[in-house]
Amino acid sequence: MTTGVETFFRSRWTAPPAGVAERDPTRLPAGFRAAGVATGSKPSGKLDVGVVVCERDEVTSAALFTSNAVVGAPVTVSRRARLSELRAVVVNAGNANVGTGARGVAVAEAMAAAVADGVGCDPARVGVASTGIIGIQLEQEAIVAGARRALESATPGGGGAFSEAITTSDRGPKRASVDVELSGGVVALSAQAKGAGMISPAFATMLCFAETDAALAPGRLESLLRAASARSFDRITVDGQLSTSDSIFVLASGASGHRVGPDSEDERLLAAALEALFRQLALEIVADGEGAERVARLTVRGPAGCVEPVARAVANSPLVKCALHGGDPNWGRILQAAGQALSGAPLPPLALAIEGIGLVEDGDDRELSAEEGRRLDEAMRGAEVEIALDIAGGDAEAEVFFCDLGHEYVSFNSEYST
Amino acid sequence: MTTGVETFFRSRWTAPPAGVAERDPTRLPAGFRAAGVATGSKPSGKLDVGVVVCERDEVTSAALFTSNAVVGAPVTVSRRARLSELRAVVVNAGNANVGTGARGVAVAEAMAAAVADGVGCDPARVGVASTGIIGIQLEQEAIVAGARRALESATPGGGGAFSEAITTSDRGPKRASVDVELSGGVVALSAQAKGAGMISPAFATMLCFAETDAALAPGRLESLLRAASARSFDRITVDGQLSTSDSIFVLASGASGHRVGPDSEDERLLAAALEALFRQLALEIVADGEGAERVARLTVRGPAGCVEPVARAVANSPLVKCALHGGDPNWGRILQAAGQALSGAPLPPLALAIEGIGLVEDGDDRELSAEEGRRLDEAMRGAEVEIALDIAGGDAEAEVFFCDLGHEYVSFNSEYST
Repeated sequence: MTTGVETFFRSRWTAPPAGVAERDPTRLPAGFRAAGVATGSKPSGKLDVGVVVCERDEVTSAALFTSNAVVGAPVTVSRRARLSELRAVVVNAGNANVGTGARGVAVAEAMAAAVADGVGCDPARVGVASTGIIGIQLEQEAIVAGARRALESATPGGGGAFSEAITTSDRGPKRASVDVELSGGVVALSAQAKGAGMISPAFATMLCFAETDAALAPGRLESLLRAASARSFDRITVDGQLSTSDSIFVLASGASGHRVGPDSEDERLLAAALEALFRQLALEIVADGEGAERVARLTVRGPAGCVEPVARAVANSPLVKCALHGGDPNWGRILQAAGQALSGAPLPPLALAIEGIGLVEDGDDRELSAEEGRRLDEAMRGAEVEIALDIAGGDAEAEVFFCDLGHEYVSFNSEYST
Repeated sequence: MTTGVETFFRSRWTAPPAGVAERDPTRLPAGFRAAGVATGSKPSGKLDVGVVVCERDEVTSAALFTSNAVVGAPVTVSRRARLSELRAVVVNAGNANVGTGARGVAVAEAMAAAVADGVGCDPARVGVASTGIIGIQLEQEAIVAGARRALESATPGGGGAFSEAITTSDRGPKRASVDVELSGGVVALSAQAKGAGMISPAFATMLCFAETDAALAPGRLESLLRAASARSFDRITVDGQLSTSDSIFVLASGASGHRVGPDSEDERLLAAALEALFRQLALEIVADGEGAERVARLTVRGPAGCVEPVARAVANSPLVKCALHGGDPNWGRILQAAGQALSGAPLPPLALAIEGIGLVEDGDDRELSAEEGRRLDEAMRGAEVEIALDIAGGDAEAEVFFCDLGHEYVSFNSEYST
C-alpha cells in the first residue's frame, strides 16, 4: 500500500476521479464543525469521544447499519432517529455499548440528547455510534460530559481530532478531504473511518462519517451512499466477522450553495468522488487488518450464483490467508475453498491467475517458466496481490479485498479481552 | 483431553459403550492384515504408504467422501469403485494427488491396480486415499512399488504401522481397537484416522479406516457408517475448511462368524461402539488441530433452521477461536458470530452459559459472583470447555467441537507450502 506518492489514493486499485483535488484531510466542508476529546475510557488516555455537527438546519443525511441480528445500543437508537435530517453524530471508541441491555440504550440516548441539547434540536436528529469492547457498561456521566465538551470545542478544522477519537485497534486515523469540481462550482467532500478487525463484506463493517457542503435531496444522498458502500466497504474482509456496530453516516450541509440535481452530471461526479474516497478508506481498513502485512484483491468471474459465495469462501479461508501471509502462491488452497463453496454442484472448469500469471487452467496446474516463477515469487512478497479466478459458464463478477492472517492477529485477539 | 486415565475414551464427551473392551490398538480384527512402508515422499522419511486388506472374498464395505466440488484423483477413482465389496484400501500421505489432472487419476488407478494384482481381485475392489500437499504430481513408480511392498508385508498386527503411514501434520497416530460383546459372541472393531488441519463439519473432514470381523450386509454397514459419522466427524471443525480428500472406509470381514442382522440388538451394540470410536477419533483430530491447545464443545438449542448455521458461525469465528486460545470467556464475540448467522431475521432472546455458568440471559449480560468468576476463569484454562447457547423459540439442537486458533496454526500454515 506504499507507493511513495504523496496522495490519499495510494492503492493501485483506486484512482482520484476527474475533477477531484485533495485538500487538508482534517478540514471539513463548509457548514460542519467537529472535535475529539478524551474521557478516559481508552486505557491509553487518548481521544475517545467525537462529535461532528452541521450548523445548518436544512442539512440532509443518510445512514446504513450492520445487518447483524445482534446490534449495539447505538445502532438501536440511531435506527429510530430521523436519519434523513441528522444535525449531528456523536461517537465514542473503546466501548461498543453492545450486550448492555436497557441501560446501554439509555446511555446511547443520553449521548444523543446531550448533543441535541447543545445544538438546540430534536434528539432524534442526532446519530450515535460506538466501537470497542463488547459487554461492558459505559459510564453515562463521563461519556455525556465528553459529548458536551466535544460539541463545545468543535471547529471546522476538527476533522483531525474527530478521526483520532473514533479509532480503536487502528494503526492510525483514516481520513480524507477533497474538492470536487461540479458544473456550478466546487464542493467539498470529506470522510473519516475506523476499522481493523471484525470486518466482513456485508456492507458497512466499520464506522464511517462523510460530510459534503453540496445540497442534495435525502433520497439521492442515500442512493449515493448505498452505491459507494456497495463498491467499497461491502467488498472487504479482514476476518469474515460482521460487527454488531457497523454504521455509515453521510451529511450534506448545502453550505456551498451548489445544489446537485437527481441524475445530473454533477451527481455522477459527486458519486464518483464519494466512491473513490470510500474505496481507499476501505482498502486502508483491510491493510490495517490487525497485523496485516499484505492486501489481496480477488476477482471471481463466472455464473451469477457462484461468484459471490466463492469470492467470500476464498477471502475468508484461514488457509488462504496464512498462505498470503507467507507470500506463498498456494493455489491448491484457493481451489479447495472455491470447491467448498460450490459443494453439491458439478464443478465447472476453473482458471486461476495471480498477477496475470496463469497457475491453473481448466482445473489443472500449469507448468510455469522460470521467469514466471520468479515474477510470481516477487509479486507474492508485494504489498498488493492481484488474484483472478474464472469459473466457466458465466460472466458475473465479484470482487473482494482481503488481508493475510498473521501472528499479530492471533496475539491481538487472544490477549484483547472483554 | 488428558485425564490421566489409561483409556482410549479420554474425553469427557465420549464414554466406552456397554459391552466394549479395549484391546491392543494396533491389532486388527480377524480377516484383516495391514502395513505401512516408507517410499521417501515425506521429507522426514517416515512411513508414507499404507495398505489394509481383507483376506476373505465375502467382505462387505461402505465408504463416504468429501462433498467439496474440487476433489483429489483418489476420491474420483474410489467413487467409481465397487464400494460395497472392497477387498482393500491403499493410502499415501505427504501428497494429496489433488489438482493433478488426468496424470493424477492414472497414478491413483495404478495404486489400486497394484494392490488388486497382489490380492488377485478386480481393481474396482480397491479403494484409494491420499492426503498431503495439493498440486504436485506423485511419482507413480515409487508409489506403486510402495503399495506392492506394503501389501506383501501386511500382517494382522500391522494396524500400528498403517496408522502411522496415513498421518501428515498429526502429532501422532490416531487409532483404537475394541472387542464388542454381542449376543452371539465377541466381535472386534478397529479404526485408524488422520487429520489436523483443513477440517470442517460437513461429514468426513479427514481419512478414517474402520475394520470389523462381524458379518454385515453392505447396506446396513453403510447405515452404521453414516450414523456414526454424523455424530462424530461431521461435528468437528478446526478451520472451517472442507478438504478435497476426505474419505471414510469401513470393511466387515465376517471372519468372526457372527452375523449382525438388520435392526437387531447386536446391530445397535455395534453401532454404538462404532460411534464411540469415531467420536473419540474426531475429538483427537480437533485436539490435534495444528497447534490447538484447547477443545470446546458448543451446543446450540433453538429453532430448527437456526441451530446449525449459528453453531458453525461461532465455531468457525477466528475471534471466538482466538479468545479460546487466550482462555478468555469472551461472550461478546459468541453473540456477534451468532448474530451474523441470524442476519436479516428478528433476534430471539439468547442465553449463553460456559461450563454451566450463565453469562448472558435474555440477550443481556448477567453479573457473576466472585465465586462464579473464579470458576469460569479456571474452566477457560482447561483442556475441554463446554459452551451452551440457547435461542428462544425451538428445541432443535446442534453440537460442534472446535479448537482454539493460536500462533502454531499461523506458523504452520504460512510456512507449509504447495
